[in-house]
Amino acid sequence: MKSEERWAKSQENRFKSAMPLAVLIAAPLVPNARLAARDAVERALVDLDRKLGPSKVDTSEAGRAAHANDESEAIGRLPDAVVYAHGQRDIAAVLAIAEKHDVPVTPRAGGTGRTGGAVPAAGGIVLATHGMSNILEISKTDLLAVVEPGVITADLHAAAEAEGLFYPPDPNSLKTCMMGGNVAENAGGPRAFKYGVTREYVLGLEACLIGGQVLRTGKRTIKGVTGYDVTALFVGSEGTLGVFSEITLRLVPKPDELATVLALFSDVRQAADAVQRIIANGLVPRCLELMDGPTLDAIRKQSVPVDARANSMLLIEVDGLALDTTIERLADALTHGGQAIDVVAAQDAAQRDRLWEARRQLSPATRKLAKYKLSEDIAVPRSRLVDLFVEVDRIGQETGVRHLTYGHAGDGNLHVNFLWNDEADKPAVDRAIDLLMHATVGMGGTLTGEHGVGILKAAYLPIEQSRELIGLQQQIKGVFDPKGLLNPGKIFPTGHTSC
Amino acid sequence: MKSEERWAKSQENRFKSAMPLAVLIAAPLVPNARLAARDAVERALVDLDRKLGPSKVDTSEAGRAAHANDESEAIGRLPDAVVYAHGQRDIAAVLAIAEKHDVPVTPRAGGTGRTGGAVPAAGGIVLATHGMSNILEISKTDLLAVVEPGVITADLHAAAEAEGLFYPPDPNSLKTCMMGGNVAENAGGPRAFKYGVTREYVLGLEACLIGGQVLRTGKRTIKGVTGYDVTALFVGSEGTLGVFSEITLRLVPKPDELATVLALFSDVRQAADAVQRIIANGLVPRCLELMDGPTLDAIRKQSVPVDARANSMLLIEVDGLALDTTIERLADALTHGGQAIDVVAAQDAAQRDRLWEARRQLSPATRKLAKYKLSEDIAVPRSRLVDLFVEVDRIGQETGVRHLTYGHAGDGNLHVNFLWNDEADKPAVDRAIDLLMHATVGMGGTLTGEHGVGILKAAYLPIEQSRELIGLQQQIKGVFDPKGLLNPGKIFPTGHTSC
Repeated sequence: MKSEERWAKSQENRFKSAMPLAVLIAAPLVPNARLAARDAVERALVDLDRKLGPSKVDTSEAGRAAHANDESEAIGRLPDAVVYAHGQRDIAAVLAIAEKHDVPVTPRAGGTGRTGGAVPAAGGIVLATHGMSNILEISKTDLLAVVEPGVITADLHAAAEAEGLFYPPDPNSLKTCMMGGNVAENAGGPRAFKYGVTREYVLGLEACLIGGQVLRTGKRTIKGVTGYDVTALFVGSEGTLGVFSEITLRLVPKPDELATVLALFSDVRQAADAVQRIIANGLVPRCLELMDGPTLDAIRKQSVPVDARANSMLLIEVDGLALDTTIERLADALTHGGQAIDVVAAQDAAQRDRLWEARRQLSPATRKLAKYKLSEDIAVPRSRLVDLFVEVDRIGQETGVRHLTYGHAGDGNLHVNFLWNDEADKPAVDRAIDLLMHATVGMGGTLTGEHGVGILKAAYLPIEQSRELIGLQQQIKGVFDPKGLLNPGKIFPTGHTSC
Repeated sequence: MKSEERWAKSQENRFKSAMPLAVLIAAPLVPNARLAARDAVERALVDLDRKLGPSKVDTSEAGRAAHANDESEAIGRLPDAVVYAHGQRDIAAVLAIAEKHDVPVTPRAGGTGRTGGAVPAAGGIVLATHGMSNILEISKTDLLAVVEPGVITADLHAAAEAEGLFYPPDPNSLKTCMMGGNVAENAGGPRAFKYGVTREYVLGLEACLIGGQVLRTGKRTIKGVTGYDVTALFVGSEGTLGVFSEITLRLVPKPDELATVLALFSDVRQAADAVQRIIANGLVPRCLELMDGPTLDAIRKQSVPVDARANSMLLIEVDGLALDTTIERLADALTHGGQAIDVVAAQDAAQRDRLWEARRQLSPATRKLAKYKLSEDIAVPRSRLVDLFVEVDRIGQETGVRHLTYGHAGDGNLHVNFLWNDEADKPAVDRAIDLLMHATVGMGGTLTGEHGVGILKAAYLPIEQSRELIGLQQQIKGVFDPKGLLNPGKIFPTGHTSC
């Protein structure tokens, strides 16, 4: 069946299900746009004043009007109050007070949205986070940034680029939009073609929930599969699930070389066809922007000269680094201070095969070493790699358990293997694993970079994740599988308590 | 505050919340590893035989034993039966029957997991999907593949590479592991350093839920922010939320050039330090693998010669394409068939600024054109770009509404702007939008590539998403915000029905 036919067929079936919709039909609908009751608002305002001080609570006509719209046509209701949050405690306090008094809350960062996400549909409180504009950290070794929700996207770009780093997402409003909104809306931009959208860059979040609970999700490592991807669920949730107080973002190295190409076409369909051809030819420009004839006409009226024959324009940007230059710099990094004994480069398939031979023999080689072997799969922030090896040696000495380590060092994701021959040594192995898990989490790492939690790591989940985060995931599990029938015994520790 | 201190502090606070844990503490725990009752199993087996035929239902000792373990040390219980699914209907039937009779189900693809994810912890039914091994589609223009869960990862690699495409995730077990398991466990592998893990490649899923409902999530477009990212929630959920019957995957062009570098060190800490230096120097190899001394010793026993002085090895692979070659190929694609009127390349900052001038003037230019303007933000699979422009023209003609289009063509993400001056024209504009939304979804596209649903697109949600998927998202919303207080009126249509 051709792809379109299959797609059409799948769409046909979207509204039919062979089976009774037991779970989903029973869903209680979340009430939409429920209005704030006047007396509830009054009581909430008293609490807000008391908790935050009147300087953060704005009930002026001007202040409320300034927070009733975004950059879309969406029409909201004038909020009853605007609260200017200066930190996580302010956000949590607003969400606790709002929950207590049943008052709706509309979170807002830059207010530059294009579909009304920050527009108060039901009045109540606008929770403004633009005052939280600190870039808390930029790390060259971990390739990450930690920011508050009020950081302007262009400010993050500049701060990252000053360190030779790069934050790719570049929504059109980058000079005014803010990171809290970028994450809430999963913002894109021209550079998404090569680099992906905001979702691809959010490693972890501190989110405040309605009621005031504070939840930390995700990780500081590039890989990590501990539990559900609650971070991804928050990204693009448009402020309906939680309000971000801190955002941990992946950065990439700033591209060294950049070229820009402009192409003009007499027909927009030719330009569209050229885009399809560029993609089919395996090219990955970082931007691939199109403008049609009426758009060019509008631009000509701004006195920008555009060839009169053109009815469409493509604007293309390519970045990258030549392979030879990369290899040269790699050799530099490896031999810096004379640390590498030897560096060999292969450029044909036979040589490459020889270099990979050791890696390929790894699995049979390690299997023979001892009767029992347990391979852990931790990941640490990459700035802690050396520390991790020191720690693994220390654990080996303390417990007397033999060990070997290999893995995806570039991701900070290492397979620490413990080896033993006598069942009587198992308690020492268990102690080694426990020490490793605590050390890993202590370094800002994660229990599992790629293997998952499964049965084997379920007991360790509370070392990495809070009771709140585990509880939340169990509630999400309950939405899908209220009876707990689907793959029971995985991920969640049985009768867990925080430890 | 230094990063480690901040991290340590955040960890300290993980188990404390300033606010009462109203919502989360009330969470009903999903029962873990609940055992299948014998009589319930008997009744389920009768139903399974009747529905699927006895050839798909294996209760033999050998069959059950062969599906009781994976490649980890996790110990499960012998399942009561193994069902060999041949298609989505089989999966849905098993999940309906299991739910009816309260029998646990453990989904399984390749059974190569390293933490017990596919090990039946509670007996019951093992739902084996390895028989569903068809690659349904590979598209060069849309850069995607559609596969069944039983496709072996290496088979997908080969099929993609035969088309000049590339599926980056490469878990060590790639010759035996299967895509259903790769997605359930969010598999990684060496190439993750540059290319990311499975999560980065899953565009959409067909998932069967316990009870037998069939849910389609996600998209065929690279960008899309319609509703919550339920696809990401499924990825890495270890078979606890649903069983995948079809997986839509993003592919990338196969890298043209490849080089491999091996470096030896006398101390593992030097190797770890070199990794940190490579990253800090802005290099992005596709693999950056490390082996420590005991690992090299084990490999030496396999008769692989490794320099005796070496106590650690780094294995590095770099891929890419020189900028000059890229520009050359780009020019080819643009002028192929003589379609571009003109192609200009800039390589310095001043020239680049001039080329971007038109794009920069776009916002002020279009704002002046008419009294009212609505910018839609649809995305279509990239093979449908030309069709989309034809369709937009047709809609303009049918409704008489003036329009212009520009945007991120490389992502198939276009901003179709409708323009009008007279309020009386609004119904025609609404009709144009409605036609555009239906045409977009009909092409396998999405309502919103980057702006979100917000208030403005909430009414259109049922055009793209099934009643089941919307209901599920509302239930997830209910977990976070049972009273519907946080950003009310967004994403979900008020009192929606399927349309």
